[in-house]
Amino acid sequence: MTSLRLTMNEEMVERFLDAAATGDLTNVSTLLSRVPSLINQKGYRSWTALMLAARNGHFPVVEMLLSQGQQENYFNREMLNRWSEKRMDSKWLEVQQSNPETVYILFSKLEPMVSTTQKDNDALETKLCRFRYEVVKDILKKPATVLIFLGVNKRKKPYSSSPSSSSASHQKKEDVCEPPSWFAIGTDEEAAELLKRVREKNCSFPKSPHRDLLNFSEEEAGVVAQARSLLAWHSRYSFCPTCGSKTTIMEGGHKRSCVNQDCRSLIGVHNTCYPRVDPVVIMLVIHPDGNQCLLGRKKVFPAGMFSCLAGFIEPGESIEDAVRREVEEESSVKVGPVQYISCQPWPMPSSLMIGCLTIAISTDIKVDETEIEEARWFSRQQVIESLLKGPHPAFSVPPRQTIAHQLIRHWIGKNSNL
Amino acid sequence: MTSLRLTMNEEMVERFLDAAATGDLTNVSTLLSRVPSLINQKGYRSWTALMLAARNGHFPVVEMLLSQGQQENYFNREMLNRWSEKRMDSKWLEVQQSNPETVYILFSKLEPMVSTTQKDNDALETKLCRFRYEVVKDILKKPATVLIFLGVNKRKKPYSSSPSSSSASHQKKEDVCEPPSWFAIGTDEEAAELLKRVREKNCSFPKSPHRDLLNFSEEEAGVVAQARSLLAWHSRYSFCPTCGSKTTIMEGGHKRSCVNQDCRSLIGVHNTCYPRVDPVVIMLVIHPDGNQCLLGRKKVFPAGMFSCLAGFIEPGESIEDAVRREVEEESSVKVGPVQYISCQPWPMPSSLMIGCLTIAISTDIKVDETEIEEARWFSRQQVIESLLKGPHPAFSVPPRQTIAHQLIRHWIGKNSNL
Repeated sequence: MTSLRLTMNEEMVERFLDAAATGDLTNVSTLLSRVPSLINQKGYRSWTALMLAARNGHFPVVEMLLSQGQQENYFNREMLNRWSEKRMDSKWLEVQQSNPETVYILFSKLEPMVSTTQKDNDALETKLCRFRYEVVKDILKKPATVLIFLGVNKRKKPYSSSPSSSSASHQKKEDVCEPPSWFAIGTDEEAAELLKRVREKNCSFPKSPHRDLLNFSEEEAGVVAQARSLLAWHSRYSFCPTCGSKTTIMEGGHKRSCVNQDCRSLIGVHNTCYPRVDPVVIMLVIHPDGNQCLLGRKKVFPAGMFSCLAGFIEPGESIEDAVRREVEEESSVKVGPVQYISCQPWPMPSSLMIGCLTIAISTDIKVDETEIEEARWFSRQQVIESLLKGPHPAFSVPPRQTIAHQLIRHWIGKNSNL
Repeated sequence: MTSLRLTMNEEMVERFLDAAATGDLTNVSTLLSRVPSLINQKGYRSWTALMLAARNGHFPVVEMLLSQGQQENYFNREMLNRWSEKRMDSKWLEVQQSNPETVYILFSKLEPMVSTTQKDNDALETKLCRFRYEVVKDILKKPATVLIFLGVNKRKKPYSSSPSSSSASHQKKEDVCEPPSWFAIGTDEEAAELLKRVREKNCSFPKSPHRDLLNFSEEEAGVVAQARSLLAWHSRYSFCPTCGSKTTIMEGGHKRSCVNQDCRSLIGVHNTCYPRVDPVVIMLVIHPDGNQCLLGRKKVFPAGMFSCLAGFIEPGESIEDAVRREVEEESSVKVGPVQYISCQPWPMPSSLMIGCLTIAISTDIKVDETEIEEARWFSRQQVIESLLKGPHPAFSVPPRQTIAHQLIRHWIGKNSNL
C-alpha cells in the first residue's frame, strides 16, 4: 500500500518509534544520538516517540525525550514558572520585590537592557542585564514605571517545576526553598539616563531592536517574549476601552482595571482588563507537485529575502480558514488541506504565530500588491541551496529564529515522495 | 513493529488512504459511504486522505473530499466570502447597503433576531431573520447603530469562491454576477422596540442566549460567529485604549480609529484599532493507561456535566506550554506531549478555542477551587455510555456543538491499543 511502502529513512523512524513505544531506553538514546531529528518524526496516526512512550507509561523514556527538547521555536522556551496564582497575592509580591535574590530586567521604551559580546564565529551573543533590588529601587518609585511579575526559576527536573501552593503551616519551610522571583521593569526614561543609573559599563540597548531580539539564548528569549509582550500591552492600553477612563495596574502587572466605578468593565470578567495576544497564521504553501513551495516578499524585507505568507486570524474564523483566506488574498493561490506544525510567540508586539503546512490546489500567482511585493514558487533544490549558503542577495529565507525558517526546514525534511 | 501492527479497522484506513493517494475516486467514495469517519483518519506522518490526494494532484478526489467536509466544528463553517479588500472601498459598500439583494441580520445587545421552530424530534431549530434594506433603513440612520460588512455569498464550487479583484474595464460584467452582500446591524435598542420596527411575527430574541446560539444550522452558525464577535468588540472598545479619546468606525466595521489627531495609535499600525481575538487552549488529558480521560466541572455547569480543561494563552506563551500550565494549575496533573486536533471560534465574546489532546505523566488530582469545582478521571466506558445516553444528571459531557465534545469523541474514536 502506497502509504506503507517504507524507505530506509522511514525504517529508521519506525525503529525509533518502536523503541519508544516499548520503553527501550538504550535504543531510543542510541538512535537519537545518531539522528537528532528523529525526535520530531511522526509515525502512524501522527504519534511521536514522546507520545508513544507517554501513552505506554515508559516514563524514563519520556523524561529523556523531554530533556532533549521537543520541536521548539525561538521565543518558545519557558525557563520561568509563571506561578500565576501568586499574581493576586500582593503581600507576597511585595516581599519578593525587596528580596535580595530577586532578579530584575529593565526595558526602556520596550527595548531590553542587554550586554553584547562578539563570539568567535563573528556572531553576536546578547544577554539580558540582570539586576538586584538595591540597584533598581529608585526606578521602582517613579510613578510611570510598570512592574511585571514574570515568575520564578523553574526547578531543573522536567515537568516537576510548579511550586505547590503554600498553606500557612508550611510557610516557613517553603520560603527557604523558594526559587528566585523575576520581575520586568518598563520605563519611558531615556536609555542614556537609565544606563547612568545602573552604573554597568557593559550594558546597552539594542541598536536595531527587532533583529537584536533574536540573539538571546533560547532560555532568555522566552523571558523576553513574556516581558516585552506585556510591556507593549501596558504601553498601548493605559485607558479603559469601554469608557475612556484611566486604569490602574493590578495582579503583578497582568491586569489593568478601570478607575471609573460606574464602568461596565468592572461587572463580570472582560478581556478589556487583560493582556492581548493576537493569533496569526503563518503557512508554507506546497505546490501540488510536492517539490516547490510558495514564498513571498514584502518591500521592507532585505534584498532577496522571501518568507512564508502570514496574516491575522479574524473574529469568528478558524485557523484552517484563515490559512485559506490569507493565501488566496495575498497570492490568488487556492489551498486545500491545512496541517498545524508548531507555533511561536512573537513579542513585536504580542502575536502568537500558528505555523502550518498547506497544499495548493491551484498554482497561478497574482500578488495583492498592498500586502506583498512579489510571490514565487521555489524549487526544493533552490531552498536547500539557500539554507546551505545563508543570507544571499539573490535568494534567502528568514533566519533560523523565525518560525518561517522552521516551517521551510520542516518541509525540506519531509520526503518528496511519500 | 509495534506501531505498524494493523487491526482490521486500521487496514480499512490504509485502504482508504491508499485509494486517495492513487486518485482512485470510486474506491474513495465507496469506502467513505460505508464509514464516513474515514475522512478524518490520519496515516503515516499524519497525512489525511485529503492531503494525500492533493499532494499527488488528484483533484477530483480532492474536490469530492472537500465537498464531504473536513473535520469541522460548529461555528467553523464559512458560508460567506469575507472579501476583505472591499472593506476599504467605502463607495462600493455604500452601493451595497441600498442594494435590494443585500441581506441584513439584526442584533440587539449582542443577541441575534431569530425565528425558532420545533422540529419533529423536539429539538429547536433556530434561523437568523434576514431583512432587506427597505426594512432596516431607519435603523441604519440612528447614530448608535453599528454596521458590519460580513462578506458576500460564496459560490457553490469549493475553493473557487473568491470574486477576483475588479479592474475598471470589467466593472460592468462583475456587477452583474456579484453575489449578494451581507451586513450585520448592532443596536442597543430594546428587543421589543426592534421587533415592532421589523413587523415580523415569527421573529424573536433568544431567551437563554448562550444555549440558543448553538441551535443554528452549520452555515448560519459561521455567520453568527463573525458578526457577534465583531459586535462584542465594538460594544467594549469604543474608546481609544492609548489615549482615552473617542473612536470612529471604519473599513466596513472592521476597524476603529482614534479621533484625537495627536494620538500615537494613528502613527503606524496598532492592534488597538483592530478587533480582538483571544486564543484559548482546550484540552483532553489522557491518562497514561490510555483508557481514562481527565474532565473537570465549574460551579456554573448543569448538574453532572464535566468538560475538558481550558484557559487563555498568555503573552509570550506557546500553545503547548499553555496546555501544560493550565492543566497543572487547574488539576495539579502534569502532562507531557501535546497534539493539536482542531479549533473552534467561540463568539462569547471572541475566543479562538484551540483543541488539543495531551498525555498525563502524573495522575494525582488536586483541584484549584477558584477555577473548577471538581476534576476526575473518567473511564472510556463511562464516557461512551454518557455519549450514548445524552444529558444525564449523574454524568454528562457538553453538547456536540462544543469543541470539548468533539475532542472527547476524537479520543473515543482512537484505538485504545496502539
